[in-house]
Order: sequence, then structure tokens, then C-alpha cells
Amino acid sequence: MRTFLDCIPCFMIQALRTGRLVGLSDEKIRKLLIDLGGKIKNIKLDDPPPKTAVMVYDLISSYTGETDPFKTVKKQGTEKALALYPQLKKNVSESEDPLGLAMQLATIGNVIDFGISSSYDLESEIQKIMDQSFGRWDEEEFKKAITRADWILYLGDNTGETVFDRLLIETLAHTVTYVVREKPIINDATREDALEAGLDKTATIISSGCAAPGTVLDQCTPEFRELFRKAPVIISKGQGNYETLSESDAPIFFFLKAKCDVVARHLGVKKGDLVLTSGYLN
Amino acid sequence: MRTFLDCIPCFMIQALRTGRLVGLSDEKIRKLLIDLGGKIKNIKLDDPPPKTAVMVYDLISSYTGETDPFKTVKKQGTEKALALYPQLKKNVSESEDPLGLAMQLATIGNVIDFGISSSYDLESEIQKIMDQSFGRWDEEEFKKAITRADWILYLGDNTGETVFDRLLIETLAHTVTYVVREKPIINDATREDALEAGLDKTATIISSGCAAPGTVLDQCTPEFRELFRKAPVIISKGQGNYETLSESDAPIFFFLKAKCDVVARHLGVKKGDLVLTSGYLN
Repeated sequence: MRTFLDCIPCFMIQALRTGRLVGLSDEKIRKLLIDLGGKIKNIKLDDPPPKTAVMVYDLISSYTGETDPFKTVKKQGTEKALALYPQLKKNVSESEDPLGLAMQLATIGNVIDFGISSSYDLESEIQKIMDQSFGRWDEEEFKKAITRADWILYLGDNTGETVFDRLLIETLAHTVTYVVREKPIINDATREDALEAGLDKTATIISSGCAAPGTVLDQCTPEFRELFRKAPVIISKGQGNYETLSESDAPIFFFLKAKCDVVARHLGVKKGDLVLTSGYLN
Repeated sequence: MRTFLDCIPCFMIQALRTGRLVGLSDEKIRKLLIDLGGKIKNIKLDDPPPKTAVMVYDLISSYTGETDPFKTVKKQGTEKALALYPQLKKNVSESEDPLGLAMQLATIGNVIDFGISSSYDLESEIQKIMDQSFGRWDEEEFKKAITRADWILYLGDNTGETVFDRLLIETLAHTVTYVVREKPIINDATREDALEAGLDKTATIISSGCAAPGTVLDQCTPEFRELFRKAPVIISKGQGNYETLSESDAPIFFFLKAKCDVVARHLGVKKGDLVLTSGYLN
């Protein structure tokens, strides 16, 4: 998916939010926005948004001196999600359709802002989200595809969501390779974050080699690209991976919440919808 | 109210929306955003946002060659609101509390996007809004204040909303001077727009002399400033007037919807709330 004009003010909003998150003064944030405003001309609308995000977050880091501004938020997110894990694990194992429920929960994991909600809120939030309608949900296609697959490549997204990914992987009972970002960007999971979620207990963790908050194939390692090429089924979590892989003809199933109008329009769903869709079968 | 950092991306969003509204090509809008990005350094955070909006909309006009880009939208808005007027007039006159209902409707007039909804939708939309809770609603203070007033200065806001203002003015039965913007900016009402809403039947229409989408007193005419100084009660509609007059010690009652987080926070209400509050009594 290419960058739309709507993404330009959105990058500004992200810079503002991140500046506040790390406690920059208003004056420094103002300078950051002025600086970013001067770089709008460098944004290539043909690139997927996560490619531009690297420039934006590098600029933010140059103001904060912080290469992992979301470190604390990420740590808290994992802790809160792990506190919920035993109950969710029980719900899944007692469900009439454990895989179906684990798939839903893995998508809900993409929704929750673990940085803000308390564990107590999270439980009711999960229930609330479960009750809402899913925008497009190609469950049968996914279930069919994995019966023929001897292993699965799983592209992670946010930290905290990782715990929900672990639950899905445990329920799948396939050999899974779990892919993380090469280095910290926004709240995306790195190897360290995946380890804290306990993903090493159930999957092989590898880095894609890509620094963007997505999967820009030509920025990935040859090893990752080889796995990507060979994988019989790929699970792709979140918007960033969707934005960078939506045009791929690989056997990908995208699990995500359509968090902005641009992605919702691209997917043909409503903003806020939870989506499971296959780039391969359509 | 001063300009907050959050207003900076918001100005970008407004430029994007307006560019699309007037049918600028993506490439021209991209150039407009680049240009606006380079002008962020000129935004004075001490100014109220409507003062900056003049720079933003002047820049947009330099790309569109259009000094009144919302002309069609405004015309349609007035027509749609006028189509509803007889029914609303009947509702008010049959109400147990005509003034209370007319006050609510005048605030709801600030909510509706007349450019998009059909007349049919508008009726159900009004009902939906009536059913929602009002964030802060100083109705008794307002009713008390007007009993002592022999005339009222009424600061208009959007076109279409003007028809709802007319209904409130007709219900008030006070002598009213209705204030419009000096020239077109966004969808704010000018003299021409107020005439189309039939406001001349019930009020004296004057321009504030201000070109901003608000009431920047030092940009207003001496005549307006004199009326403002003398007015026993001032009704101020919408965010733009609130943003420019929130620090005034004049006897103002602000009727508005808190449409963004910044204004909601400033008012101490939730975003989306309908508000009637007095700057004078607090």
C-alpha cells in the first residue's frame, strides 16, 4: 500500500505524541514539528507508510536522544498481557473452538493499548471487543490453508500483542517461526520483547532485518526473504505489515485492526473493524 | 485560548480536506502541504487558533484561486436547514419550554455537517443528538441573564447553523444584533449567508470586520468593538468564537460543540459534548 496524503498530518501527530511520551518540552516538540514540516517534501507517496516512518522516528530520536522511546510502555504492555495470559489460556482450552477463539484474541491483541489500560480494564475491554462485529473474517480459508501447511511464518507487530500471538501459536500446534523487528521502532516487538512474552517457548524467533515498522522486503535479510519465499502460510499481524505486504502474492493472512481511514478504505472495511483477510486467495 | 501543539497537525488536516473539497489534484495538495509544513515556524502559540487559520486558508486560496471554496457547501447547508425549519419551528412553539428547546437546537446547529447529510438524515440526526447528554449546560444562568437584558449581541458561526440561530432569536423575543464574518472563511456565515437563512427578518445583521474564523477583537471594527463593550448579554456560537473570546470578561454565553480534544480540555468537558457555558459568571 502506498502512502496517502492523509498519512502526512498523521506523521505529525505521531511525532507530537511520541515527543510528549518521552517528556520533551513544548518548545522542543514545536521545533520537531517545524523540522518535520520541512521534510514533507522528502516523503515519497509511492512508498508504503512504514518506510517513511523510519525517517520520522529517526528525526524524533534526534530530538529525544532516545533510540527506544517506547521501552517503558512496551515493558508494561508485556507485563499486563502476561497477567491476563493464564485466564485467556483457560478460556481457549475450554472453548468449543479453541483455534477460532485464539485467532480472535490474537487480533484483539492488535487493538489494545497496553500502555494505558490497567489489567483489570483489559479483561472488560477484551469482552467488549469480542462482542463487536468483525469487519471481514476469512476464518474458514485460514483454517483450510493451515491444514496443508507443515510450518508457519508469523510476522509479529506490537509488544504486548506478542502474548496473544503466543497463545495463538500454542493453539496452532504447527512449527512456527516468529519474526520481530531488527531494532526498536515505535512499540513494535524486537527479539528482547518477544523473549519477555515467552515466545521462545513455542516458536523460533528471528529478526526480519528490517528497521521499519513493517516488512519492507528489500530491507530484509536474505535469510528472512528465503523463509518468506518458502513459507506455506504466513500470518501477518497489524497495519505496518499489511501496508508493506498488501501487494505481495505470498500466501499471507493479514490479522489486524483497521486503525485509520486510509487502511480501512484500502481493505474495504470500516475504520475500527477487526479483519482477517488473505492477500493470496483474492 | 492559545494555540496548542495539537493544532499544528490539525491545520494540515484542514488544508488537506479543503484541497480535496475544491477538487485540487493530489500533486497540488502535496505541494500545499509541503508549503504549509514550511510555514509551521510562523505559527505563534500565543495566538488563538483562528488567527493562524487566516494564514492557512489564505495559503489554500493561493493554490485553489478560490476565495470562497465552501460556497456550494454553504448554499446546500442553508437550503437543507431551511427545509427543516417549519417542523422545528412547530416543535419549539408546541414545546413546554420553547426557549430551552430553541437553545438546544441552536447548539445542535453547531454540530451538524450540513454539507454531507441529507434533509432526511438531519431529522434523525437532530433527535439522536437531543438524546445524548449535554456536557455542561448553564441554562438557568442564561435565562436569568437575559431577563435583565434589553438587547443581545449574537455572534454567528457556521452557515446552515444560521437557520437554527434564527429560530433561537425568534424565540428570545429580544432585540438582537447578529454578527457575521467580514468575508468568506471556511464555512463561516457572511452577510450573504445570513440573508439566505432569513436572519434579516428577525435581527440586525452586522459584520465584526474580522477576517478570521472567530472574533479577534483587535481585528474588528471600532463600531463592533463598541457594541461588544456595551452588550448586556452576548451569545457566542461555535469553537472559533470561543477560542478567540474565552479570556474575555464580557457577559458572554458560549453555545458550542467541543469538536476537538484541545477545546474540550480547555472547557473541562468531553470531546463531542454540547456545551452552554458562561465566561462571565465563572
